[in-house]
Amino acid sequence: MSSSVPGNTTIALDAMGGDHGPAVVVPAALRFLANTPAVDLILVGDEDKIRASLGGPVPPRVRIRATSQEVGMDESPSKALRGKKDSSMRVAIDLVKDGAAHACVSAGNTGALMATARFVLKTLPRVDRPAIMTAVPSLHGHTHMLDLGANVDCTAEHLVQFAVMGSELVTAVEGKAAPRVALLNIGQEEIKGNEQVKLAHQRLAVSRLNYIGYVEGDDIFLGDVDVVVADGFVGNVALKCSEGVAKFIGSSLKAQFRRTWWSRLAGLGALPILNQFRQTIDPRRYNGASLLGLRGIVIKSHGGADEVAFENAIRIARKEIRADIPRRIGEQVGQQLDSAHYKATA
Amino acid sequence: MSSSVPGNTTIALDAMGGDHGPAVVVPAALRFLANTPAVDLILVGDEDKIRASLGGPVPPRVRIRATSQEVGMDESPSKALRGKKDSSMRVAIDLVKDGAAHACVSAGNTGALMATARFVLKTLPRVDRPAIMTAVPSLHGHTHMLDLGANVDCTAEHLVQFAVMGSELVTAVEGKAAPRVALLNIGQEEIKGNEQVKLAHQRLAVSRLNYIGYVEGDDIFLGDVDVVVADGFVGNVALKCSEGVAKFIGSSLKAQFRRTWWSRLAGLGALPILNQFRQTIDPRRYNGASLLGLRGIVIKSHGGADEVAFENAIRIARKEIRADIPRRIGEQVGQQLDSAHYKATA
Repeated sequence: MSSSVPGNTTIALDAMGGDHGPAVVVPAALRFLANTPAVDLILVGDEDKIRASLGGPVPPRVRIRATSQEVGMDESPSKALRGKKDSSMRVAIDLVKDGAAHACVSAGNTGALMATARFVLKTLPRVDRPAIMTAVPSLHGHTHMLDLGANVDCTAEHLVQFAVMGSELVTAVEGKAAPRVALLNIGQEEIKGNEQVKLAHQRLAVSRLNYIGYVEGDDIFLGDVDVVVADGFVGNVALKCSEGVAKFIGSSLKAQFRRTWWSRLAGLGALPILNQFRQTIDPRRYNGASLLGLRGIVIKSHGGADEVAFENAIRIARKEIRADIPRRIGEQVGQQLDSAHYKATA
Repeated sequence: MSSSVPGNTTIALDAMGGDHGPAVVVPAALRFLANTPAVDLILVGDEDKIRASLGGPVPPRVRIRATSQEVGMDESPSKALRGKKDSSMRVAIDLVKDGAAHACVSAGNTGALMATARFVLKTLPRVDRPAIMTAVPSLHGHTHMLDLGANVDCTAEHLVQFAVMGSELVTAVEGKAAPRVALLNIGQEEIKGNEQVKLAHQRLAVSRLNYIGYVEGDDIFLGDVDVVVADGFVGNVALKCSEGVAKFIGSSLKAQFRRTWWSRLAGLGALPILNQFRQTIDPRRYNGASLLGLRGIVIKSHGGADEVAFENAIRIARKEIRADIPRRIGEQVGQQLDSAHYKATA
């Protein structure tokens, strides 16, 4: 996939994606370079705007790849795919395809990014559908969750593939030999789960994964599980809900500390601790979702990411390059789905 | 439904349900009576255990209805339904059916409660399936969410019925003339929503409800919406996720305040404010989910509820009695589904 790239590790950044474009991507790139040796970055997008954000000469280890189009944040995936062949998003992915970059990062719209990445890079053999995965903070550190919205309706087979891909990513990137994998389900007996989830459960139970069974929504944050698998509709709702609750608690807590002079005073004393806490669950530290199952590494940054958050997404790209994710997932999907046990029940 | 009940409003309590049985239900009943005039309670369950929890003579406005069986928290709904005709859960629901009580409250297992309530009370005309609904705290006060797990797979028609029921409950109980109703969906364009959600969206758009369109998971807690409709799988995941995140943040915050002597000191100062905040989002204040769409009022308490939480569930039962919920929902479902606009597209 990337053997043709000479010298340094290279990551292509869609400089025009997200709510802020180069105003965030360029400073994030510079932060990343200051913190990370031996990685080159290609800034893909409107050359004038990128140069304006650089505010000076192009620094070492940075190249600009000029493009003439942008994919809008609300643009339909099919329109972006058909009509925007010189968009910053498309060209960043093309650079991965052509071997000029080892990975790309975009804060552009998820639907267009997934459709374009799938069209340009193709899925790995045996992978029916790519999935979107991210980590969320949890009591025991963090939990990986997929799919987060790429696939609204999933068969049991898709869910099994997601489980294999998620497990292998955690093994490869975090060095965990046997990540604990679970299916997201609801608690009520008998009416438990829909048909796809039940069937995936049977298949995973005889797989070579460290499958621990069903978990419920609260276990994502409280339970001892590394990878939680759900269809894209459910996974997306779970992710957005958790973001909503965290923001709601943050705002309400702030309001509470501002209510009276006494609470303001107490808040002043508690501020350093509250700030420290905020840092541990800072969503910016978790920014960067992986598009898994493709023949190349594509990282999706949150559209509203700031430079700290976007830098984190570039870091994730680098980790996946070092872990050789597409090759490893390709191998695992093949091996797991070929395993005798699995076949016997599939 | 309940015209035959003489005198006071009467609520039947399944005294054996939940993780703690009479040890929680009986004190909750006494708290409720102390705070609320003109309501009688029937404690349904093991007479000896109920008397032991009362610790003295049966107080005024309390009756005991002795039963010989209990439904286990993990018992299958069909087993409970077939084999436990003298269970505290079943008899509490029978009392509603027979007009001896205006409502019942149980902390027993959700699947068994829903199956039994549906079998005994039956659904309202035009309602295909009952749904479970609760309120969750949000920036603008609280948001009602349904279904929370009664129906794993829903058609568009079911979702529309849930929307009508939820809207009418909020109107009847909270006096809001036109509650803002939304469908829970995910954000990506084109792949937006599954087929049922899309179809329900079309139908709700021409309904007489104050339908505001799609919302995403975070809007439940941050958005300006009164009723959020989803299928039972998605709704349950959303609810459990939000509980999980709230607990995770609570535990992490506590740990942060305990880390050093300085943080302990700061925590001491901040404690009253943190406690006040905890009260505003206290899940006990939100305990009590409504089984909507039945010919009678059934409130489900959390299995782990304490007496404060269970008392809240009894309060919800009383509110629904005063608002005459089953009659009003029955009328609304009929009118809404008969409306010319709706029919034109259905």
